[in-house]
Amino acid sequence: MRKARMSWPGSAPQQHLTIAGKEANNSALPAMEEVMPEVLTELHKVRRTLEDHYRDMQDIEFTVQRGKLWMLQTRTGKRTAQAALKIAVSLVEEGVIDREEAIRRIEPGSLDQLLHPMLDPSAKTTVLARGLPASPGAASGKVVFSADEAESFAARGEAVILVRIETSPEDIHGMHAARGVLTTRGGMTSHAAVVARGMGRPCVAGAGDLRIDYEARTMAARATLVKAGDIITIDGSTGEVMVGEVPTIQPELSGDFATLMGWADAIRRLKVRANAETPIDARAARRFGAEGIGLSRTEHMFFEADRIGAMRRVIMAEDEAGRRAGLADLLPIQREDFAEIFRIMKGLPVTIRLLDPPLHEFLPKTEAEFGEMARLTGKDVATIRYRALALHETNPMLGHRGCRLGITYPEIYEMQAAAIFEAAVAVVKEMGEAVEPEIMVPLIATKKEFDILKAMIDRIGKEVMAREGTVVPYLVGTMIELPRAALLAGEIAETAEFFSFGTNDLTQTVFGLSRDDAASFVGTYQRLGIFEHDPFVSLDVTGVGELVRIAVERGRATRPGLKLGICGEHGGDPASITFCQEVGLDYVSCSPYRVPIARLAAAQAVLSGEQESGTT
Amino acid sequence: MRKARMSWPGSAPQQHLTIAGKEANNSALPAMEEVMPEVLTELHKVRRTLEDHYRDMQDIEFTVQRGKLWMLQTRTGKRTAQAALKIAVSLVEEGVIDREEAIRRIEPGSLDQLLHPMLDPSAKTTVLARGLPASPGAASGKVVFSADEAESFAARGEAVILVRIETSPEDIHGMHAARGVLTTRGGMTSHAAVVARGMGRPCVAGAGDLRIDYEARTMAARATLVKAGDIITIDGSTGEVMVGEVPTIQPELSGDFATLMGWADAIRRLKVRANAETPIDARAARRFGAEGIGLSRTEHMFFEADRIGAMRRVIMAEDEAGRRAGLADLLPIQREDFAEIFRIMKGLPVTIRLLDPPLHEFLPKTEAEFGEMARLTGKDVATIRYRALALHETNPMLGHRGCRLGITYPEIYEMQAAAIFEAAVAVVKEMGEAVEPEIMVPLIATKKEFDILKAMIDRIGKEVMAREGTVVPYLVGTMIELPRAALLAGEIAETAEFFSFGTNDLTQTVFGLSRDDAASFVGTYQRLGIFEHDPFVSLDVTGVGELVRIAVERGRATRPGLKLGICGEHGGDPASITFCQEVGLDYVSCSPYRVPIARLAAAQAVLSGEQESGTT
Repeated sequence: MRKARMSWPGSAPQQHLTIAGKEANNSALPAMEEVMPEVLTELHKVRRTLEDHYRDMQDIEFTVQRGKLWMLQTRTGKRTAQAALKIAVSLVEEGVIDREEAIRRIEPGSLDQLLHPMLDPSAKTTVLARGLPASPGAASGKVVFSADEAESFAARGEAVILVRIETSPEDIHGMHAARGVLTTRGGMTSHAAVVARGMGRPCVAGAGDLRIDYEARTMAARATLVKAGDIITIDGSTGEVMVGEVPTIQPELSGDFATLMGWADAIRRLKVRANAETPIDARAARRFGAEGIGLSRTEHMFFEADRIGAMRRVIMAEDEAGRRAGLADLLPIQREDFAEIFRIMKGLPVTIRLLDPPLHEFLPKTEAEFGEMARLTGKDVATIRYRALALHETNPMLGHRGCRLGITYPEIYEMQAAAIFEAAVAVVKEMGEAVEPEIMVPLIATKKEFDILKAMIDRIGKEVMAREGTVVPYLVGTMIELPRAALLAGEIAETAEFFSFGTNDLTQTVFGLSRDDAASFVGTYQRLGIFEHDPFVSLDVTGVGELVRIAVERGRATRPGLKLGICGEHGGDPASITFCQEVGLDYVSCSPYRVPIARLAAAQAVLSGEQESGTT
Repeated sequence: MRKARMSWPGSAPQQHLTIAGKEANNSALPAMEEVMPEVLTELHKVRRTLEDHYRDMQDIEFTVQRGKLWMLQTRTGKRTAQAALKIAVSLVEEGVIDREEAIRRIEPGSLDQLLHPMLDPSAKTTVLARGLPASPGAASGKVVFSADEAESFAARGEAVILVRIETSPEDIHGMHAARGVLTTRGGMTSHAAVVARGMGRPCVAGAGDLRIDYEARTMAARATLVKAGDIITIDGSTGEVMVGEVPTIQPELSGDFATLMGWADAIRRLKVRANAETPIDARAARRFGAEGIGLSRTEHMFFEADRIGAMRRVIMAEDEAGRRAGLADLLPIQREDFAEIFRIMKGLPVTIRLLDPPLHEFLPKTEAEFGEMARLTGKDVATIRYRALALHETNPMLGHRGCRLGITYPEIYEMQAAAIFEAAVAVVKEMGEAVEPEIMVPLIATKKEFDILKAMIDRIGKEVMAREGTVVPYLVGTMIELPRAALLAGEIAETAEFFSFGTNDLTQTVFGLSRDDAASFVGTYQRLGIFEHDPFVSLDVTGVGELVRIAVERGRATRPGLKLGICGEHGGDPASITFCQEVGLDYVSCSPYRVPIARLAAAQAVLSGEQESGTT
């Protein structure tokens, strides 16, 4: 028996035929044509019938016995994202399928392969080692050997590559902080590979020729010794690890990609925004088609080297006057941060979240850092140690953070509100473009908290606009990230002008589950089928989703036009986007690299909604 | 103008008359009788009219001008709990009011004054100092000078008196752990006084003659120096601080108290249980009329000196076999704990909660303790330090605890289930009394978690009962303490046989507010009116309450006879009890000393419910 596999169609970039289980390239085709031309003709006929029926490229198995063709199996062929895109667009152009069908056929997550920077092909590179191409894209940065190090370097604005023998759930925060991940052990489904793909981080996995020495903080590659802090480049699309920084080129977002995205945009009803607080991220967001910023986390702006000192002086101040002095130093810096984002986003909406994390996050942790801080603030080390201790919290996630800071230290939010309004006024004057900031108050549990802070923000806005003689429209709204806020949404919407669902924190409180601490048992939970999906990746529709639904209904009952969005990491997850569409949100907001994925998923959500309502 | 105040009635223990703003004792009455006998007769007539009208003792202000009586004001007289009780019972006996009215007239919280141990009047005492009688009852214990110390001593089963210059919200955990509280500064409304009354802890406040030296860990009283660890006795009803342990006598719970409680019990529909895990607490619970135990926290049993070692061996074990060996040592101890509680509760229901706190709570914290533990477990200090570090959690409240431990370390819950069943069987054999344990799984977020653990508990129960040849009825149910469990209650009730609302944790997750960390801003929140009541004291009816209501409705829709209770601290709060009645719970469970308060509040809840339904 001769058995063969064949893939098609003509418009596909690869075309291959397998005979008797072995793969043959195109050059094998003439051979069959010579040996049994009638069979080949029949095969092409059957293939056309099958492909017309399934309206997609087929992966066909057949056998020829005594000159007779037997069809064994047919299924839709596997392909790369690029190929899938090309096929779908070609089939539409050929009239085989319509645009909606083309949109349905592309798995949104697969677009990830097309969205990342690639190495400049003309660049000269020195390859240090090769591993598996575990998550697409190229990235350069300083080598760090631990997740904590990755986080603290990144907090200082440094690009890092996290290098580990292998990663585990404890390393997630470091993977978030790093530009790319390199491991020396593990395959395409290793922890590092799976997580990096989820995050859109380039990853080279299982580069077994590299020897990591955590103690010495070195990585040895045959002749070369790489030390912590040295710069390397990884290419997660090829698996190469290179010495130094290799120039990259931005992804090509035109052609078939742009065509399909255009079709998706024409269909989708959900707007797509990005979570971004740096100019780099804001620019990436625009490039990928974001229609605004859904979450700009102002605290990230305080971690940079030139600001953390001022922030620490605020925290160490003994009284309000001392805090105001430190905040006065931060005001112009923060104002320029906002102005730059408004400039980049040119009239698109920008949601700015006021300070959210507990103050102790800004304080140093080690004795050496205490000493450094003592020198900077002119206090003695004991005072600093005492203050750090006093600010320590048992459960920081449930502690003195979010709007609770705004209530107890109003001068912090006052400074931030002033910076936002002053930046908006300045950019309106400078560019003549409309700027409409959406000021977002985090961690609201009661209407009264929101009302106190909204009154304060409105007062500052009035002062700034009167002083500057320019009026800018703005909204003041809140995150819905606590169960109580979701339940009391009807009341909160009396004064809140928009809601943004913070589904990360909402998942934490609804499950009573800290994202930082879940790693020790979530593996077991997935193995036992208690969690079908990680609820931090794909929104828990029955639990968290019910509270979102309740908040949407109650909020809109009070304020029919209430603007609703989601800014948790679920905003970039296709399954969660379908839920957001169903429940009636106006927009989703996700990391810039997931914006195209969200655009496509939002279009698919419309199509699947139509299909469902058609059958019921 | 002569102005006077007068209080009555005849059945009241005190009777006083104030003339011209000065208070006069009974001996002043003849004087008025002599000077203006007609006015006095008229005054008595008016008094009778007013008291018949208000049906209560009146505090009257009047004046006599040129022989004419002018009534200035009348209001219900203030009285001690004992007097109020006596008046109410007398008025019923005299036919002035009915029993329901008597029940309505007693403020449940005031009963607290009657429920605490008193010093034996025949005991010889050496008074060290005097302060304010800030919270009733007498208590003896070792002197500790910090809340942390109070907690760690109490964890070892030692009675302590927390001694502070003044207390602040940071000391709450220590006040919970202590038998009594003594401060040298502050009045009847100081933090220590208010909080101690709320907790039912004896408190002497503002004993200004005592000098506390935190550094030296001493307290000086004129001639005597008291050191940390010395035993003292405080009497929160008189304000006396005494040297050594003074014998106490239990409160007299008969007479008017018993009469009124009997009337309340005849009316109320909510059952009242107690939270108790020690024989002392279980006996107090019975004495105060508890109808079962609603929450027995098994982890408290592991903290005692003879058990913590075995528990630590379990935690330090490298594999399941090692853990099982340690657990085998704990099994007979835990079995006897349960047996003793079953014996005391004689056939009343006992709800036992399986291990709840994260494992790191059982590990030592200081280097000295690491050393001690290394010696005990035969491991080196580095290993122990490493294990403690590995178990450290960012947000332990939202971490690896509750049923998550039962899922990941099934052998722990297996041991506990075996201990419960073996104890129940043993007590049934020994006493011939029915024992019906209610086994409660904490921190359920999904039905699957519960199902896995219920199957395991049922299996162990079957094994034990088959081996022992005795069948005991039992229930397996769950805490509803996470928003998700409340929302999914309909599904969870398919297999859960009872629900107990853990409103402490539910309040923490609904508000995203850690009880341990709230102190730094809750003061501001109350001052600004954001919190009308502390949500950890009085249940937040609009937020947390809605989830309770949802869970009740959904749970009962699935399983109509579902047994429902509450075991958070709200179970002893009168306002929260009214809510529990409204929402249809079967019972409330609270600390033993609050059981009579809950019994009365439950009767009042019925009466206020009838009143409301009568007017609407």
